[in-house]
Amino acid sequence: MNYRIVGRTAGVALLIAAASMALSMLVALFYGEDPLPFVWAILITGVCGFLLTRLRPDVNLFYAKEAYISVVGIWLAVPLFSALPFLFNGQFGSVVNCIFESVSGFTTTGASILEDIEALPKGILFWRSFTHYLGGMGVLVLTSLITSTSQKRFQHLMRAEMPGPTADKFAPRLRTSSRILYTIYLTLSGLCAICLMLTGLSPYHAAVVTFSTAGTGGFGVLNGSIAAYENPAAEMVVAVFMLLFAVNFGIYFLIASRQWRQAVSSEELLVYLGIIVAATALIFANVRGAYETLGDGLRHVFFTVTSIISSTGFATADFNLWPAFAQSLILILMLVGACAGSTGGGIKVARVIMIIKGLGQELRRMIHPKAVSVVRLSGKMIDDDTIKSVYRFIAAYFLITFGANLILTLDNYDFSTTFSAVISCMSNIGPGIGLVGPMESYALFSGLSKVVLSFCMILGRLEIFPILLFFAPSVWRKS
Amino acid sequence: MNYRIVGRTAGVALLIAAASMALSMLVALFYGEDPLPFVWAILITGVCGFLLTRLRPDVNLFYAKEAYISVVGIWLAVPLFSALPFLFNGQFGSVVNCIFESVSGFTTTGASILEDIEALPKGILFWRSFTHYLGGMGVLVLTSLITSTSQKRFQHLMRAEMPGPTADKFAPRLRTSSRILYTIYLTLSGLCAICLMLTGLSPYHAAVVTFSTAGTGGFGVLNGSIAAYENPAAEMVVAVFMLLFAVNFGIYFLIASRQWRQAVSSEELLVYLGIIVAATALIFANVRGAYETLGDGLRHVFFTVTSIISSTGFATADFNLWPAFAQSLILILMLVGACAGSTGGGIKVARVIMIIKGLGQELRRMIHPKAVSVVRLSGKMIDDDTIKSVYRFIAAYFLITFGANLILTLDNYDFSTTFSAVISCMSNIGPGIGLVGPMESYALFSGLSKVVLSFCMILGRLEIFPILLFFAPSVWRKS
Repeated sequence: MNYRIVGRTAGVALLIAAASMALSMLVALFYGEDPLPFVWAILITGVCGFLLTRLRPDVNLFYAKEAYISVVGIWLAVPLFSALPFLFNGQFGSVVNCIFESVSGFTTTGASILEDIEALPKGILFWRSFTHYLGGMGVLVLTSLITSTSQKRFQHLMRAEMPGPTADKFAPRLRTSSRILYTIYLTLSGLCAICLMLTGLSPYHAAVVTFSTAGTGGFGVLNGSIAAYENPAAEMVVAVFMLLFAVNFGIYFLIASRQWRQAVSSEELLVYLGIIVAATALIFANVRGAYETLGDGLRHVFFTVTSIISSTGFATADFNLWPAFAQSLILILMLVGACAGSTGGGIKVARVIMIIKGLGQELRRMIHPKAVSVVRLSGKMIDDDTIKSVYRFIAAYFLITFGANLILTLDNYDFSTTFSAVISCMSNIGPGIGLVGPMESYALFSGLSKVVLSFCMILGRLEIFPILLFFAPSVWRKS
Repeated sequence: MNYRIVGRTAGVALLIAAASMALSMLVALFYGEDPLPFVWAILITGVCGFLLTRLRPDVNLFYAKEAYISVVGIWLAVPLFSALPFLFNGQFGSVVNCIFESVSGFTTTGASILEDIEALPKGILFWRSFTHYLGGMGVLVLTSLITSTSQKRFQHLMRAEMPGPTADKFAPRLRTSSRILYTIYLTLSGLCAICLMLTGLSPYHAAVVTFSTAGTGGFGVLNGSIAAYENPAAEMVVAVFMLLFAVNFGIYFLIASRQWRQAVSSEELLVYLGIIVAATALIFANVRGAYETLGDGLRHVFFTVTSIISSTGFATADFNLWPAFAQSLILILMLVGACAGSTGGGIKVARVIMIIKGLGQELRRMIHPKAVSVVRLSGKMIDDDTIKSVYRFIAAYFLITFGANLILTLDNYDFSTTFSAVISCMSNIGPGIGLVGPMESYALFSGLSKVVLSFCMILGRLEIFPILLFFAPSVWRKS
């Protein structure tokens, strides 16, 4: 293991984090709030980051394991240091709470231990929401890293999602593809913020809601989430942009380069939209009696569906009060999650399609053992290795989910609460069912459970395997 | 599809079912009960079975798909006709209830819609328990069919479990291997019945409890399951035999041929016993406060653990009253299930080992992409195809579980109830958590839910894929 190169990469990330804290400190100063929590956090983070960037690797070779460990290092170090403003603010209760909130922010989960959000200063809340925005960017870097990697398996997953350009055409080099993704991210965010201001939100609220929407995070600055704005137009803007940020960013690249036909023929996109329509219709049929007008019901259901499938977790309605069918469908949406190559979390629509097609392929093979049977996604052939890696992901996902749930049950809450909390954190959603519902918080859990859940958020965000690698002893041997 | 050969196979199975009903009728006559429900059932089943055996296939070729569909055909036809004594008895409420109970019996699940079991005549209860015994035999035939099949994948799963003899050595021909498995099954059953009688059970009770134990089914003839006997010695006999019937029968073959070292070095056996010890210790630590003496607590916990992991579902304690941790560990045991090659259900210990080793292999490949990394089970190499098929099984298992749960939630019961009911049926256990706990029944569910759960039991019993094949249109084309 080339420790120095890993440390150096983490150092650069910490400097970016420190600069972002400085932006939040300006917001605190603008509202006449105490800037000291930020000053200390910036100093510590900045100095550590600077020292790490001073590391000079003996060799500049970057093997697969250095790449994985660097990614994990960033996703562990940045949330840890970014918890400092929360710690120095002093309103978060415990160190574990600060870390939970910060991890939840960077992984764009949006699960919170805060019971009274509005009691916090505006600067701290701005930073809290901004971690979503940075986390969303981080995921996009990760995406472009994977796109430009030589690992065939990952390329296939990406290519599978992008019907038009193959990975090498789309992303000849990491820098170029990162730039394209960032441009799309910033443009969509700008549009979202403008639309929100047009519906009457103040610039501050438009900014923080945009950060959470763009990163598909879900932290709000009001106790009642998006419902607290009592602004149906803003709700629809948020719903539409949650939907948009959970689409594979490759689609926007196609649209920007006017390859319309390829964009709309993406199988993942069509299935994703199909799931949204079907889930909205089914849940609406299940809950419509609870709402005075059909329009009201449809609005809340559509908002909830886009909020969950995009893994954002904003709420305008408390789905804890809906019937079991609606809740169980919401749990399925949590598992499915967004499109691959977006800022959203979950198993990903592309994987779900490949699982179902893979099972179909197996049935064909059972009937005709010697015939050639191929799985295609958007017309492109998916090889057996890719299908296997998708199955493996599912096996690992549920192994971890039931294991983590077992530890959480030591707190002795009901099964729906703990199980949905784990799935919600693994899929980076935020709210769950029962005691962690959309109008509740994660404050009830013990420190151990909060650590386990923070861990699940990072596992989900990095798609499990890089994190598991972190715990393999052989990775840490000096090479 | 060669319909005639499929029909003929089902016909033979129906004749065996009719003969078994005749045995139960003798019990009814012995206790002076009305034999008419059996008379009608035997007539209908016997005539249909006889007519089907008259089918003369044009060709005697038996392709893979005919084999799969024959197996599915038997597992659909036999439970359907075996529901007839329940139907003619008239105490089961509805046709769906009769079918649910019969499917639950043959799949050795043991989930029941009966709320007052003791209200039924002894002959009917004998038949109900006997379906477990037949079902257990059926699973063993299936096992030997798979062992002697030419499908490499299945052979590997079997071989993986049997450390000593490879599949071809163990089972050169279907008849031979079936005979060996039956001899083991009957010997163990005989021992179980004798031990039960030594603890003071009457021959009738010893017989019905043995049927349920041998098939790892779980139907009792008293409302309070095994607890109702108030006989701790009998409880321990049942616990030990549940444990034994859930062991890979290949191990007994090794023991019978004095290959002791190979028998005790089976990795699946060691992990299986390890899980039982660990789960007993963990649950005991969690619930010991609820019992007056440590011995009492340990006895109930050990019984529950062997009952669940063996997929039997007998109860001496109501684990619904235990803390969340114990319940969640029980749910994991339900998923893991018994050893492959036994009468037990669930994902199977061998598969769980292969999943975990497969994930370890993937991590090694991520670190050293070019190094050769091999998964071994009991020293034997497991190829990539087998690992893939295990992952695929897990993906299919959870896809079906969440889908079935969604339909069940239309009944609007809580998530723990519906989700544990589905897992319990998929893994052929019997009781679940919440409203389907060990002291409850499945009577509360709607007809639709009962049909879905019956379906889950058959899916679990036949390890999913043959049943999915049944619904593939291309299977049904005339060849």
